[in-house]
Amino acid sequence: MGSAIFMDQILLILTYAAVIASAISGALEARKHQMDIVGATTIAFVNAFGGGTLRDMMLGRVPVFWVHDPGLTIAALAFAFLAFYRLETFSRRLLITADAVGLGIFSILGATYALQLDLSPIVAILMGVVTGIFGGVLRDVLSNRIPSVFGQSTELYATCSFAGTTLFAILYGIHVNTLSASLIGAATIFLMRLLAVRFKMTLPPP
Amino acid sequence: MGSAIFMDQILLILTYAAVIASAISGALEARKHQMDIVGATTIAFVNAFGGGTLRDMMLGRVPVFWVHDPGLTIAALAFAFLAFYRLETFSRRLLITADAVGLGIFSILGATYALQLDLSPIVAILMGVVTGIFGGVLRDVLSNRIPSVFGQSTELYATCSFAGTTLFAILYGIHVNTLSASLIGAATIFLMRLLAVRFKMTLPPP
Amino acid sequence: MGSAIFMDQILLILTYAAVIASAISGALEARKHQMDIVGATTIAFVNAFGGGTLRDMMLGRVPVFWVHDPGLTIAALAFAFLAFYRLETFSRRLLITADAVGLGIFSILGATYALQLDLSPIVAILMGVVTGIFGGVLRDVLSNRIPSVFGQSTELYATCSFAGTTLFAILYGIHVNTLSASLIGAATIFLMRLLAVRFKMTLPPP
Repeated sequence: MGSAIFMDQILLILTYAAVIASAISGALEARKHQMDIVGATTIAFVNAFGGGTLRDMMLGRVPVFWVHDPGLTIAALAFAFLAFYRLETFSRRLLITADAVGLGIFSILGATYALQLDLSPIVAILMGVVTGIFGGVLRDVLSNRIPSVFGQSTELYATCSFAGTTLFAILYGIHVNTLSASLIGAATIFLMRLLAVRFKMTLPPP
Repeated sequence: MGSAIFMDQILLILTYAAVIASAISGALEARKHQMDIVGATTIAFVNAFGGGTLRDMMLGRVPVFWVHDPGLTIAALAFAFLAFYRLETFSRRLLITADAVGLGIFSILGATYALQLDLSPIVAILMGVVTGIFGGVLRDVLSNRIPSVFGQSTELYATCSFAGTTLFAILYGIHVNTLSASLIGAATIFLMRLLAVRFKMTLPPP
Repeated sequence: MGSAIFMDQILLILTYAAVIASAISGALEARKHQMDIVGATTIAFVNAFGGGTLRDMMLGRVPVFWVHDPGLTIAALAFAFLAFYRLETFSRRLLITADAVGLGIFSILGATYALQLDLSPIVAILMGVVTGIFGGVLRDVLSNRIPSVFGQSTELYATCSFAGTTLFAILYGIHVNTLSASLIGAATIFLMRLLAVRFKMTLPPP
């Protein structure tokens, strides 16, 4: 009991860290495109919540998740504001690390929601990947460029999400304890992403 | 009773005016990008109904609103057609005024629907802004350019929606009569938008 | 009874053919834009399932259709993979034919779902067209270009969907047997599209 509450608190802190990181990097992206603060907060919001919003709309989990949690919304908007007007505060390495935390958490959460609806593992894995990567895809669409996650020179990103959610779905399927399966899946995504950035790992071209 | 029915009729007329204005300016945007009538009617439709559609999908108000009102759909398509083949009929000033009416009405309607679901004021304000501006955002995405509402040189637009829905949410929160709160909110948005265009007011850059 | 089952099997085979064709042409589009396999499978998926997904989200038919049918998902991903790494396997003429099959089937299915919800014929026709064309629209948005279906030099595409679903809605309205109405509608779309490509038929400019 005590350890479950402790885990919940850890998860909450990590979720805030990931949302804040997404919001900050969204706002920085908006700056690059000469947007104003409206653009910056929108891109920040979409980067942080876009994947989960699309997942919820496709699964019918409505109203979508962030609507129930004004704290996350306020955090995302506040840090987008700060990043837009006080850029120099944030280090790139910290952002990449926090973003990798988010990729891990959001991917596993997305897959979990699909499995809770008794959907097939392949669909659960897709929902995990959509949750993990579509915030960035929609951010890039709103910035009028091809999503960076689709580029041949982008370090592994969706691939990490895919690998970790697949591992999670397998462990879930053989009835490993859900908490352990989640932790292993999310940690795999997190570490694989950091390694991919560190060693500039990309996918083979056609 | 009589005055409520009278207000409903005013609202209906204003809604049609706003939808028609959005449809016309959507069709004109399509012309600028060398689209055919398929593009023009689609862009017109998205410009008029995109924000409300996204709001409804996120809140779970489905089937989405326009599905229940073929009259609005037909009006949007008919005026898109007219604007595409008979451009010269419409004055820019009239379009900006009707668009500002729409920004006011749609923003307040969006916030109202969220408050009716007992969501927090900050979420209601966001839903109001999404309803007000995302038609234009999606129009620009389909036209392959950065949404004009995000640009540093764009006169206040989302900001007007934000200010008016915030005022509305405050009045609603302190139990001002809903109709009065709605009128004050929508009028604030409308007037602020016209002033912003008149005096070329923009947001401060980073 | 026997003939209904036979028709269902034909429909299933045609659906798979259409989804596979959409996935392949999505993956080829991704190659043109120097995307990696993540981009190729995403674009393929969006091209095949985007229209139906948007329709389902707007109508509230959630979880969306493909979530219930992992076989279609696997087929789309597998052929996207194959097309990305083994381009030369597929002929352009075959793709256009299979895509026209898909345009016919998906348009009529989209209109049918709307009519089953007792929505008005004009809305049903729009849902048919959205189902038929929005996969390609979203594919082009993710590829950072104006949707080809909106271009003045594009051979009739949405127009075929519109004509066929309108015919279908009329036949449905005058109580023609649903199966016959569906077949006539889908065949009209299919043949009209092939003729439009063959004779380079386009819509009149403004």
